[in-house]
Amino acid sequence: MRLLVVNPNSTATMTQKAVDAARLVAAHGTDIIAATSKTGPASIEGYYDGAMAVPGLLEEIRIGEAAGAQAAIIACFDDTGLDAARTMANIPVLGLCECALVTAGFLAPRFTVVTTLGRSRVLIEDLVHHYGMAHRVKVRAADIPVLDLEDDHSGALDKLHRQIEQALMQDGAEAIVLGCAGMADLALQLQSDYGIPVVDGVSAAVKQAEALLTQRLTTAKRGSYAPPIPKPFADS
Amino acid sequence: MRLLVVNPNSTATMTQKAVDAARLVAAHGTDIIAATSKTGPASIEGYYDGAMAVPGLLEEIRIGEAAGAQAAIIACFDDTGLDAARTMANIPVLGLCECALVTAGFLAPRFTVVTTLGRSRVLIEDLVHHYGMAHRVKVRAADIPVLDLEDDHSGALDKLHRQIEQALMQDGAEAIVLGCAGMADLALQLQSDYGIPVVDGVSAAVKQAEALLTQRLTTAKRGSYAPPIPKPFADS
Amino acid sequence: MRLLVVNPNSTATMTQKAVDAARLVAAHGTDIIAATSKTGPASIEGYYDGAMAVPGLLEEIRIGEAAGAQAAIIACFDDTGLDAARTMANIPVLGLCECALVTAGFLAPRFTVVTTLGRSRVLIEDLVHHYGMAHRVKVRAADIPVLDLEDDHSGALDKLHRQIEQALMQDGAEAIVLGCAGMADLALQLQSDYGIPVVDGVSAAVKQAEALLTQRLTTAKRGSYAPPIPKPFADS
Amino acid sequence: MRLLVVNPNSTATMTQKAVDAARLVAAHGTDIIAATSKTGPASIEGYYDGAMAVPGLLEEIRIGEAAGAQAAIIACFDDTGLDAARTMANIPVLGLCECALVTAGFLAPRFTVVTTLGRSRVLIEDLVHHYGMAHRVKVRAADIPVLDLEDDHSGALDKLHRQIEQALMQDGAEAIVLGCAGMADLALQLQSDYGIPVVDGVSAAVKQAEALLTQRLTTAKRGSYAPPIPKPFADS
Amino acid sequence: MRLLVVNPNSTATMTQKAVDAARLVAAHGTDIIAATSKTGPASIEGYYDGAMAVPGLLEEIRIGEAAGAQAAIIACFDDTGLDAARTMANIPVLGLCECALVTAGFLAPRFTVVTTLGRSRVLIEDLVHHYGMAHRVKVRAADIPVLDLEDDHSGALDKLHRQIEQALMQDGAEAIVLGCAGMADLALQLQSDYGIPVVDGVSAAVKQAEALLTQRLTTAKRGSYAPPIPKPFADS
Amino acid sequence: MRLLVVNPNSTATMTQKAVDAARLVAAHGTDIIAATSKTGPASIEGYYDGAMAVPGLLEEIRIGEAAGAQAAIIACFDDTGLDAARTMANIPVLGLCECALVTAGFLAPRFTVVTTLGRSRVLIEDLVHHYGMAHRVKVRAADIPVLDLEDDHSGALDKLHRQIEQALMQDGAEAIVLGCAGMADLALQLQSDYGIPVVDGVSAAVKQAEALLTQRLTTAKRGSYAPPIPKPFADS
Repeated sequence: MRLLVVNPNSTATMTQKAVDAARLVAAHGTDIIAATSKTGPASIEGYYDGAMAVPGLLEEIRIGEAAGAQAAIIACFDDTGLDAARTMANIPVLGLCECALVTAGFLAPRFTVVTTLGRSRVLIEDLVHHYGMAHRVKVRAADIPVLDLEDDHSGALDKLHRQIEQALMQDGAEAIVLGCAGMADLALQLQSDYGIPVVDGVSAAVKQAEALLTQRLTTAKRGSYAPPIPKPFADS
Repeated sequence: MRLLVVNPNSTATMTQKAVDAARLVAAHGTDIIAATSKTGPASIEGYYDGAMAVPGLLEEIRIGEAAGAQAAIIACFDDTGLDAARTMANIPVLGLCECALVTAGFLAPRFTVVTTLGRSRVLIEDLVHHYGMAHRVKVRAADIPVLDLEDDHSGALDKLHRQIEQALMQDGAEAIVLGCAGMADLALQLQSDYGIPVVDGVSAAVKQAEALLTQRLTTAKRGSYAPPIPKPFADS
Repeated sequence: MRLLVVNPNSTATMTQKAVDAARLVAAHGTDIIAATSKTGPASIEGYYDGAMAVPGLLEEIRIGEAAGAQAAIIACFDDTGLDAARTMANIPVLGLCECALVTAGFLAPRFTVVTTLGRSRVLIEDLVHHYGMAHRVKVRAADIPVLDLEDDHSGALDKLHRQIEQALMQDGAEAIVLGCAGMADLALQLQSDYGIPVVDGVSAAVKQAEALLTQRLTTAKRGSYAPPIPKPFADS
Repeated sequence: MRLLVVNPNSTATMTQKAVDAARLVAAHGTDIIAATSKTGPASIEGYYDGAMAVPGLLEEIRIGEAAGAQAAIIACFDDTGLDAARTMANIPVLGLCECALVTAGFLAPRFTVVTTLGRSRVLIEDLVHHYGMAHRVKVRAADIPVLDLEDDHSGALDKLHRQIEQALMQDGAEAIVLGCAGMADLALQLQSDYGIPVVDGVSAAVKQAEALLTQRLTTAKRGSYAPPIPKPFADS
Repeated sequence: MRLLVVNPNSTATMTQKAVDAARLVAAHGTDIIAATSKTGPASIEGYYDGAMAVPGLLEEIRIGEAAGAQAAIIACFDDTGLDAARTMANIPVLGLCECALVTAGFLAPRFTVVTTLGRSRVLIEDLVHHYGMAHRVKVRAADIPVLDLEDDHSGALDKLHRQIEQALMQDGAEAIVLGCAGMADLALQLQSDYGIPVVDGVSAAVKQAEALLTQRLTTAKRGSYAPPIPKPFADS
Repeated sequence: MRLLVVNPNSTATMTQKAVDAARLVAAHGTDIIAATSKTGPASIEGYYDGAMAVPGLLEEIRIGEAAGAQAAIIACFDDTGLDAARTMANIPVLGLCECALVTAGFLAPRFTVVTTLGRSRVLIEDLVHHYGMAHRVKVRAADIPVLDLEDDHSGALDKLHRQIEQALMQDGAEAIVLGCAGMADLALQLQSDYGIPVVDGVSAAVKQAEALLTQRLTTAKRGSYAPPIPKPFADS
């Protein structure tokens, strides 16, 4: 199996982190192929960055699918461009938020997502609502700029710890979901620190992609995700 | 007041139709300025077209705001790019779906949105759900390619009539919302034909934009819609 | 255009305050006509006052419509009698709560309503739920008797400030809605104090009334809001 | 125990029918006292009639409570004035819709309310939503003017049968709720005709009133239903 | 009338407490018959205990119905086995949680359930959601092992007081529901202590059972609760 | 990896069918171990069968875990006993309904579950609601007794086809979920017949179990799923 992990931002160290997390859980025989957006922002923090990242993201999926990728993972917790990608591609496409939420859902009736900046909190709350989990999930922001996660001395980890502790004490969280692709390397350590399930979206998405392929399932092409109707674009 | 109407697709006749509808309801002293996306698809039919249209749309809003526009209207019923535009711009930004739904909501406890293609039905249902109107609104697709609305001999109007009649008979609709910017010229005639309120999103959005400006209200810049954090893009 | 602003309580200073707020935002050429209920309570605080105010309110709308009013605004944040008025009248009828909620909804994904007495909190929460905004809106009461808003030395403004500050800190509010017609004169100052959108329902309703009239839209008369069936009343 | 059954409309034959239904299920030792509104409409069909009926209804409850009634039942399926009555009275107040819905809820996970006129359908749907049963309950209108229920030759019963049959076939209804006080005499016969539970709101409300009294429970007076604050009314 | 109160756990003192509460509110002429599960756990604390208690519970209802019981009450606040019992029995079956929630719902728009252990909080929240009351009800756990309620010196009552006080201050609770059958003897005292309605599920269920029987209503046997299809069990 | 597939009913041919489906998708190196309930009903059709099957099901999971199983799958679409099993076991436990719903959720925004008997429709609708998918999913029953699926000449397959076709035409379904473990062998053929994704719960659950184990995730043991508190059972 060949799985494409696309980082919709243009920070290569984040791509590498996602790929590392992906390879850690990939099945024997699964190839993880990475792509970094050639036109995206350095990080995705809020609605604007997310929307601007989509064309570059879709382009990488198109290239990857043409080159033989059998499923694609959008390595951003905002699930930016997910519906568009499912429409465009013939291979399954997975988003970190949806995959992480359903994975945590198998483990705990109540859990908390800890994300980076406050501006992303409502965006993720709305995804949680869209995925039907609003009655089960709370969202917290740790006030961490995304790229601080790439810097060991930024204090990001301390802030993350503090929010997890508050989630346990105040939210009644029974598990934690890490709400940013840049936190993918922290899950196992945090799980061990706190003795509760800690779900990383990249890992979760890799396993969902493999699961769909093994079951010979791919995106429905009847209705909402029918292939785009070929049409001219103004700049083409 | 200067209101910018941005057509996120690249079909100039649709821009003109939206502008005509806008001018019909604009207050004395309101200037309607039009922009057509320079990079968008010829029409927006489904998730892929909608996502690909966003950067061109945002660019027109940025240009328009710099040139003195005081509010912007995204002339597409899918409200594509709405959150991103609100984040980027300092002027209020309105989408047709949100404006039409709340307008119809003042007139009838139950109503039906009639849109173009079946592939857009779920997308609009999810917007309706997001705007909190799922218990009040049904969505129907008339199986009309968007550009057929630009062609008087396409049979589009007949299909639209048929869906309105089914909405009245089967959905218990008490009013109708036209679910495509390309239907903006049809509202008054249909309202007269059926004797029920028929809401067009372009008109509704113009009045909401004027309403906000007169009240000296603009997008909240605390939290979710805080201005984008300046950062490099890979291709810049 | 002639817009009727009906104060369903019988305190004339509150009527005046609503009229002042209405005139501040009314379009050139819009006449604001005022009416004060001839049978209502001195203020509307909770379910009982609200229900008892309805017949007097409906009577004023009937008189106003007969005298040429083209739309009516019920100047009470509880939207008391709104469905009944829409049924009775042939002109559009607007309520402050519905108008303020949708207006704030264009500006911020999360916001807080600050109302007067604790006994009105659940009533407004239920309106918020009815209007489909429960996932976006919190409601706070500032423990202010309504008529204290008519007295500059009552300390009401301080209490209001305190609740706004708590909304910002604890609710993650990105905008504020003032939850009482008697606060209509405070919006601009509070907006300036806090640097966030502050929405007043009277102003919002005036603009919605104008918006509907310009679009030649009025209440649906098919189904729920069909005109009352003429019938005898016991005391007539 | 003394239970007051108030008919908020002014048709005495409907009061009698409600009282008969009430007496049929009242416990040994429960006195059913009847009151007919002295100012209400001849029947309650839609929002306007309902709102206009409230002051006369509240007056009867006040008189009844002063005369020793220990609980009051509002004999109208629209639960008109229910929150106001609970605020005003110190005795428990029950509405037919709420009582019938919870009673049917003990018997079947899915059921249908059959009401009179189409204009009342949405009003009752919104009550169902308010009471948290929207996922379990459908509402149908039989196109019966309320007073036709007082006339054996009006064809009302046939129309009711037709809707019950459609509820069984199309809605998957497992029980039926009769959605008008004027149908109170039909429940047992329909239950026997169709072999499914048929719930009448008057009977249900009598038993709930007795249940609360026996448990020494009455309306909460902390918060939403706190006694009205004494204040002048304009016409007093 | 003969009402069967089944304690699905095997602690006889809890059965006795439930029976005492039941007899206190039972109508003249209602016989309360008690049964204690012969195979259940000593107490029901969480999902596992609840599921394991069901066969013994169903067996007692079967025996009771055969011996002439006309309705059955499952004396556990988790409503464990309720749907199965309704399917199996031809008599109405009531659960404490459903009965207490609807009873409190007649008295207050917002209230709080106080239960025993934290592990039961989410279970009850999910019941509240299932019964459609999530927008009205909060759930608190007092950290009381169920059997501590049988021991006057366990400190359980103090913990319960503390949670009720927090519910009043922090939740805006206007009434309290006692969330465990083992608290049945405390309702009247707590109601008197705090001056707010305090609902006990056993009492509530007795009155609902009587109410259904007097109305000649029983479980719908069309659809979801159709009698079990006779079939072999592996161990029979 | 050793995955335990427990059939909570006692029909060995159904166990075999589930095991066959499981092995078809199991990863290289995953051992599928089967268990058939020693005390369950011959099939699970509705609430009663489901509740009675739980103790035997839990016993098999206990035995399996002790024998080294690393995850357990409850091979019944009703997810009967799922919460209890997660509480009891230290290994992850998966249910077919939850796994199938989330799997289909990656493929299509709207889909339909086709189950066996009408009596199971509401039960599954309530699961869909519980899992937060009520806005996306419809449930249909094909009127097939479960054991007819074991008999090639029962006509079951024709009935199933008919419901799938109606789901496509009437529900707007974009994918299908097979709502019974006994349909596990039909997914690939139906997928090929209709050209849409067809999801089988057994396959989906196997992949989820593997996914969790590879990610070193197991059931949260803080809060709702904390291990049962050791206590006597009446018959032990």
